[in-house]
Amino acid sequence: MHADRFFSADPTIRKLARNLYLSVKNQPIFAPHGHVDPALFSDPNARFGNPVDLFIRPDHYVIRTLYSNGIPLQKIGISPTDQKVEYDPREVWELFCSQFHLFRATPSGVWLTTSLSDVFDIEQKLSKENAGITYEILTEKLSTEEYSPRNLFDKFNIELLATTDSAADFLPHHQKIQISNWKRKIVPTFRLDSLVHLSNPGWIEEIKRLAANSNIEINNFNTFIQALESRRIAFQRLGATATDFSAESAYTEELSPHQVDEIFQRALKGRVDQQDASQFVAHMLMEMARMSAEDGMVMQFHAGIIRNHNTALFQQFGLDIGGDIPVIVEFTRNLRPLLRRFGNHPNFKLILFTLDESTYTRELAPLAGHYPALRLGPPWWFNDSLNGIERYLNQVMETAGIYKTAGFNDDTRGFCSIPARHDLWRRQAANWLAGLLARHVIDEEDANQMMYELCIGLARKAYNTESNEDGNPV
Amino acid sequence: MHADRFFSADPTIRKLARNLYLSVKNQPIFAPHGHVDPALFSDPNARFGNPVDLFIRPDHYVIRTLYSNGIPLQKIGISPTDQKVEYDPREVWELFCSQFHLFRATPSGVWLTTSLSDVFDIEQKLSKENAGITYEILTEKLSTEEYSPRNLFDKFNIELLATTDSAADFLPHHQKIQISNWKRKIVPTFRLDSLVHLSNPGWIEEIKRLAANSNIEINNFNTFIQALESRRIAFQRLGATATDFSAESAYTEELSPHQVDEIFQRALKGRVDQQDASQFVAHMLMEMARMSAEDGMVMQFHAGIIRNHNTALFQQFGLDIGGDIPVIVEFTRNLRPLLRRFGNHPNFKLILFTLDESTYTRELAPLAGHYPALRLGPPWWFNDSLNGIERYLNQVMETAGIYKTAGFNDDTRGFCSIPARHDLWRRQAANWLAGLLARHVIDEEDANQMMYELCIGLARKAYNTESNEDGNPV
Amino acid sequence: MHADRFFSADPTIRKLARNLYLSVKNQPIFAPHGHVDPALFSDPNARFGNPVDLFIRPDHYVIRTLYSNGIPLQKIGISPTDQKVEYDPREVWELFCSQFHLFRATPSGVWLTTSLSDVFDIEQKLSKENAGITYEILTEKLSTEEYSPRNLFDKFNIELLATTDSAADFLPHHQKIQISNWKRKIVPTFRLDSLVHLSNPGWIEEIKRLAANSNIEINNFNTFIQALESRRIAFQRLGATATDFSAESAYTEELSPHQVDEIFQRALKGRVDQQDASQFVAHMLMEMARMSAEDGMVMQFHAGIIRNHNTALFQQFGLDIGGDIPVIVEFTRNLRPLLRRFGNHPNFKLILFTLDESTYTRELAPLAGHYPALRLGPPWWFNDSLNGIERYLNQVMETAGIYKTAGFNDDTRGFCSIPARHDLWRRQAANWLAGLLARHVIDEEDANQMMYELCIGLARKAYNTESNEDGNPV
Repeated sequence: MHADRFFSADPTIRKLARNLYLSVKNQPIFAPHGHVDPALFSDPNARFGNPVDLFIRPDHYVIRTLYSNGIPLQKIGISPTDQKVEYDPREVWELFCSQFHLFRATPSGVWLTTSLSDVFDIEQKLSKENAGITYEILTEKLSTEEYSPRNLFDKFNIELLATTDSAADFLPHHQKIQISNWKRKIVPTFRLDSLVHLSNPGWIEEIKRLAANSNIEINNFNTFIQALESRRIAFQRLGATATDFSAESAYTEELSPHQVDEIFQRALKGRVDQQDASQFVAHMLMEMARMSAEDGMVMQFHAGIIRNHNTALFQQFGLDIGGDIPVIVEFTRNLRPLLRRFGNHPNFKLILFTLDESTYTRELAPLAGHYPALRLGPPWWFNDSLNGIERYLNQVMETAGIYKTAGFNDDTRGFCSIPARHDLWRRQAANWLAGLLARHVIDEEDANQMMYELCIGLARKAYNTESNEDGNPV
Repeated sequence: MHADRFFSADPTIRKLARNLYLSVKNQPIFAPHGHVDPALFSDPNARFGNPVDLFIRPDHYVIRTLYSNGIPLQKIGISPTDQKVEYDPREVWELFCSQFHLFRATPSGVWLTTSLSDVFDIEQKLSKENAGITYEILTEKLSTEEYSPRNLFDKFNIELLATTDSAADFLPHHQKIQISNWKRKIVPTFRLDSLVHLSNPGWIEEIKRLAANSNIEINNFNTFIQALESRRIAFQRLGATATDFSAESAYTEELSPHQVDEIFQRALKGRVDQQDASQFVAHMLMEMARMSAEDGMVMQFHAGIIRNHNTALFQQFGLDIGGDIPVIVEFTRNLRPLLRRFGNHPNFKLILFTLDESTYTRELAPLAGHYPALRLGPPWWFNDSLNGIERYLNQVMETAGIYKTAGFNDDTRGFCSIPARHDLWRRQAANWLAGLLARHVIDEEDANQMMYELCIGLARKAYNTESNEDGNPV
Repeated sequence: MHADRFFSADPTIRKLARNLYLSVKNQPIFAPHGHVDPALFSDPNARFGNPVDLFIRPDHYVIRTLYSNGIPLQKIGISPTDQKVEYDPREVWELFCSQFHLFRATPSGVWLTTSLSDVFDIEQKLSKENAGITYEILTEKLSTEEYSPRNLFDKFNIELLATTDSAADFLPHHQKIQISNWKRKIVPTFRLDSLVHLSNPGWIEEIKRLAANSNIEINNFNTFIQALESRRIAFQRLGATATDFSAESAYTEELSPHQVDEIFQRALKGRVDQQDASQFVAHMLMEMARMSAEDGMVMQFHAGIIRNHNTALFQQFGLDIGGDIPVIVEFTRNLRPLLRRFGNHPNFKLILFTLDESTYTRELAPLAGHYPALRLGPPWWFNDSLNGIERYLNQVMETAGIYKTAGFNDDTRGFCSIPARHDLWRRQAANWLAGLLARHVIDEEDANQMMYELCIGLARKAYNTESNEDGNPV
């Protein structure tokens, strides 16, 4: 990996970018939104398993690239839900290495290469030829204590790691970490999806789990809300400062108590239709905002994605095999009811994420540039990439200003990709600032302070962890 | 301010850009669309007031940045409509200066810094520390005749300044200027919004004002149109060459005379609903086109914005405190009825503006690259920025060609920001042409002529003031 | 024409780009989608006619630029359908040359200049002054055998040229070429538009032509499909590997056999409405996919364009005078029924084209990055340009990977513009790769192999002509 990777080819910008990057290189990683499994850290003896379990099977970016290029899922160790397929991890790894050209110029390729290099000292590009030796090296290292999740957590210099957890969850791993001697900040995030999307097959089981874990009998909408509020307190006790929710549309609407309870009762009886489900989401967004305004938890909203688009694959293999596809999303009209009530509220913070980049200049930056309650999250998912970050910075910052954004988060399932992802963001942010500096849009003082903010300052503030503030000016 | 600011860091492009920029640096400013108050010029003794009145309170870009970062409007001297708040301009200025980092890398930051430097010789970046001294300097200068609006008009080398005025307006300031000895071109623009949006609270008062100022009793749609036509003549007599209108949607439709009169009659009785209002706008766009085809006034249309999105703030503070938010806009289908009738008309010119950049390559450039009547306006509002201009040039010009665009206009309320805004456009246009030249897409002759056109030639032609043409080729 | 044209001004990138470009400069042209008239090649003695017939009258890019700038179509030799206008080609050429500034910085300008230079050795920029001499040179050359279509075909080093032909067509020219001694690959493409858009005026005649040429009596939907399947075989015998279809929307839906036959019967009686027409298109997209999955022909789909938007001009002059305008298009929801059935099919390939660039990152790249059946076509029409190609590469490749794209095709009516268009693509692709290389996102091995793929490898594979594969790795 080249020391100046991702910086502009222009020597003036490259030099400025390198210096800005180096000024924050040793800042800790602040990871307020992601999907790492907390079980990796609750057991001091946990290990990552084999290279396929670490790099391929859990990574839906890798899965989709291989699958879309004609490789059946069974060949990379993924079983249909009703039939366990045996696989030889060595063979899967060889197949993966032989197809590594598919990842050329993709963010997955960059993260994989950076992780292999920085975490495992594997400097060669993966190929059919070196599949055997790289498998050996990885397997050996992964078995050692040096490469245990807890040791890597410290090696990665992580200040805070937020996981994503169902609001119905009892959070045993977070509890175990909290009472252990291992004093690191691994906090849960209050995720509402499984409890709010009424037409999800598992909804009623999630409600039962919520009832059990909150110790509240849920038989109407009011008790549902009470149970959620009770769990919010439990999450906060374990360090949570944020909630999360994802939906196809950003539509918000306040229903009457009677209306919403009728929908909820129908759902309990398994009789909701599509309109019920949409209206319930619209109303629950209002409730989430109300609860956040009251208890101060930061509300995150990821809008505009159709889950399990590939019905055939979903029926055979279940969730998370790469069939989630973005759709057009509209914020200006849809969020108006919510912003009318809570957009000016001093105690409310809403962080918005989008996969529809056409909303950056048209809707999101103007909205965040006006409403005190709004912050814009970093480029999400497919757009967390070299070009995606550049587009985000160029399209959002002029109108919103950097201070209305939430810095960076990695949103990853792959623990070992965390340093690579933050490094990519820091390099691109440095490069962007270097361009502004070279064109005399900002001066050096501006650039240095903005670099710190983009690296870690903004994220700390956005997620209400300002007590970690190291004194840099805002 | 660096002499090469905003030019590419690449030395080849920078040098070419600088030379192109210098070739037009002394061209006068042609400002065919904006919102400067004509009263500043009708009274030879007018002054700009204090620094807060000049730079903060009237600038909705500044207001929204401060407000969105948690600063209450009252703290920057803005009063709720029902309650006059006293404020100390010195304190407001200090607050503003202490928060100047919020404007980093924003166009507002660039305009403010350029205006302070070029107009007031204040070279320091604003900060809490220099708030006192900068307030003193500005206050002193603003009281002198040298800094009177009329003197700055000449200092800025303005060839033409168009204001924006309700079609119902009597235009006393323009009349006063016209009969004065001060022979400068300050012309009105015939703005139709307040008379066409039937559900606006003040609509009926505007109709009464239109009736009074046109001396035509308005009791049906026909007399309404007669009154408008009469006012068009009055505006033209005072130098107006253009009309303007803004709406949420670009929907056009020709109603029958009976239909439209029924809607108008309902409006007179205060009984219009949302559909009436939309249909009336759709029909009035057809009428505006018809009148322009007949009298030759250039029609401007700014589409795709929801006014006063923040209802709570609007109810408390009224208009123009930053709560206008763009929405998706569609031109191809919506403008078809209008273009079918007038798009090939040799006497008709329609200049389109958008905040939805996804329409640049998809709709606007193809439409302007086909219909003789169309011109594309420069990047509007939030997109009048370094990156916004670059996106506009890169996304519009290949398909429309520069000759189907309307050059630049500043669209500003802030008179002192006019030179800064035109300078930014000229620099970015020079930089864009330099890039094309360096990549051998155009040659030097092309670049020089295009530079002149983008700077001033296209705007003069688009707004039918070709008699000002200085002989440069088209 | 400068040898380094279109490469970055940055010396590092320029050098890398030049080397990458030179590595594929001698690769043949593979042109799997376009609109060249096959009659040019079936007759060994065919000639191109005069310069106006070659460069102006058939080129709807040139027509729209001139028309949109106020030049009546009659002045450039285009007649209303009901009235033949005489014109002097010399005068038309002079008018065109005198207006050549209109093409500054447009792709048309680049293609024209490159064709004149590379094919006809005319190095001067066209102008009023050199109109006479350039007309002379062109006329003289066009009359010689050296400039015959067949000779230029070889001079251009074309490996394969696909034309576009109605599915109802008898393909006499392709047949004549196939049985001739001139062994070049000019293959038809099975285009369905005229048979599937039921409300087209000529639909019933096309059905009759299809019946005649397939020798199948068409009196219901089943026989219509049988006739199409019969013609698919005939097209394949003449080398066709692909079908094509264009529609306003990407909506797909499977109708019941009864429903679709009812619509078809209404169409035969001339009684379809707009909803019938839309539903029929939606169902036929499913049928096209089914037939492609069965016979292995590659399905191409160009979505999101309103044909003949300028009704007035269409009524007077007919098709193809530049009045086709893009509209918003939605793929994620609309293609779901089709992808559910055929998206995972191992024998099915669907190449998607769009004019709505907002779908690149939001819909198309995620879809192609998941479904094995999908490929993304190159930037289409207005976006086949310097900036359009750059946006495409930057917005599509990170998520889809280059291996899910279909390389380049020129989509041109103008035979002499083919080398210019492929050259532009190759230069921009080289420049893009050079940027990635300079920023250390890819290494040299990657860059070289990707250059080959983007130049010709991906197109060969996408259109199932892999037997031409020269051994380069995939």
